[in-house]
Amino acid sequence: MRIKLIIAYDGRPFEGWQSQPSGRTVQDQMEEALGRIAKARISLHASGRTDTGVHALGQVAHFDAPPGSSMDAAAWKRALNANLPSTIRVMASERVLEDFHARFSVIKKTYRYEIDTGEVLQPLRAGLAWHYPQFVERERISDAIQCYLGEHDFAAFAANRGDGKDVDSIRTIHEARLESRGETLILTFTGNGFLYRMVRLLTGSAMHCATGGEPVSWIMDLLEPGGGKHSSHCAPADGLTLVNVDY
Amino acid sequence: MRIKLIIAYDGRPFEGWQSQPSGRTVQDQMEEALGRIAKARISLHASGRTDTGVHALGQVAHFDAPPGSSMDAAAWKRALNANLPSTIRVMASERVLEDFHARFSVIKKTYRYEIDTGEVLQPLRAGLAWHYPQFVERERISDAIQCYLGEHDFAAFAANRGDGKDVDSIRTIHEARLESRGETLILTFTGNGFLYRMVRLLTGSAMHCATGGEPVSWIMDLLEPGGGKHSSHCAPADGLTLVNVDY
Repeated sequence: MRIKLIIAYDGRPFEGWQSQPSGRTVQDQMEEALGRIAKARISLHASGRTDTGVHALGQVAHFDAPPGSSMDAAAWKRALNANLPSTIRVMASERVLEDFHARFSVIKKTYRYEIDTGEVLQPLRAGLAWHYPQFVERERISDAIQCYLGEHDFAAFAANRGDGKDVDSIRTIHEARLESRGETLILTFTGNGFLYRMVRLLTGSAMHCATGGEPVSWIMDLLEPGGGKHSSHCAPADGLTLVNVDY
Repeated sequence: MRIKLIIAYDGRPFEGWQSQPSGRTVQDQMEEALGRIAKARISLHASGRTDTGVHALGQVAHFDAPPGSSMDAAAWKRALNANLPSTIRVMASERVLEDFHARFSVIKKTYRYEIDTGEVLQPLRAGLAWHYPQFVERERISDAIQCYLGEHDFAAFAANRGDGKDVDSIRTIHEARLESRGETLILTFTGNGFLYRMVRLLTGSAMHCATGGEPVSWIMDLLEPGGGKHSSHCAPADGLTLVNVDY
């Protein structure tokens, strides 16, 4: 029986999603809880990794319940929440068919990036927003992020994960939106997939334009296919949240 | 030179405002930072205490700069923020006359209490809201908190601080408001002063009515002068924030 989980986490205390020898990752905590409940090793497959410090409202993962387990999806949710720290919560669970795969069945993902432009960062926002206490031209952020819309080769907006894998860097961005809430800027990106650190590079590069570092045409140049250029303007992990994964 | 500070803090890592032998209070952290900056012991006077786990967006405190100090209010703010953990921030500072006193000059205070009624508490809300995953009759909360408006003897809504002081328990509540944001209920109370744990008792008692524990007339009975009754329904510290102090 395959179970799909919707998982929320506070990224601050963790070294990202993906299992590490330290054990201080969300996947490690979840697999440890699954192991305690099932009294057997269970592997969890997520929609994708998130970096150290990145938060999630709607990360998705699946696992296969051990043969003979009498627990239904709701029971797994309750048991997991009873065995996890309050910084990780299973928000929803459901039984899915065996052909569902949290990573390979993804249709689109939505990320949110929050930037706080206030002079002093509120303590309750520490680790949840990029503190950027400078004048920001909001229209230039809008102009910059409009360039990302559609299908592009985003190689200029990808960091090297260092695992030697050569990945196809063509992605489609369906939505790129800027909202303001007081001194907070909220960027929302929806796309069919995102390369390693791509959302942080899209955000950092747009902010570089918005604070006068480069004209918006610089973004267009970076998106030229085969240009071989790279943006080095990567926004910090703090402000990033994986909001939703659609299947 | 007297300096007034507006201070925000995340209450989670602290044992409240008021100095304790452990040193893990907001006042201790602030006085330690002031001492490092001034190289002399400086006492800080706040508008009032907040309990362990209670947050602040606009706590107010004052101190007297040592004679001969050349620092203005803006320099104190910068120096303090450079010497404080990110869980405490001085949001604003200004020079005030010697007759200003952060505690004795208070005209009114505003507190906010947040209740999350969702089935599972979002990890980013842990410690910031009272998790109350039950059906709540919102109209009964409104009806209950309306009873608090005006001048009353709030002795039934005060905890004993245990310091043997006999305090006058007449207070005036100017505003008591309920807002909903999705599954979150936000209660806002503005008054000329609040007794020990009063906001948590006002909230807990209103919730006791809203979940069918007692009719709203029970609140009216508790407010009867000299009734000698007490509410034992104290909401946890998690959801409480000192929003603003007016002078």
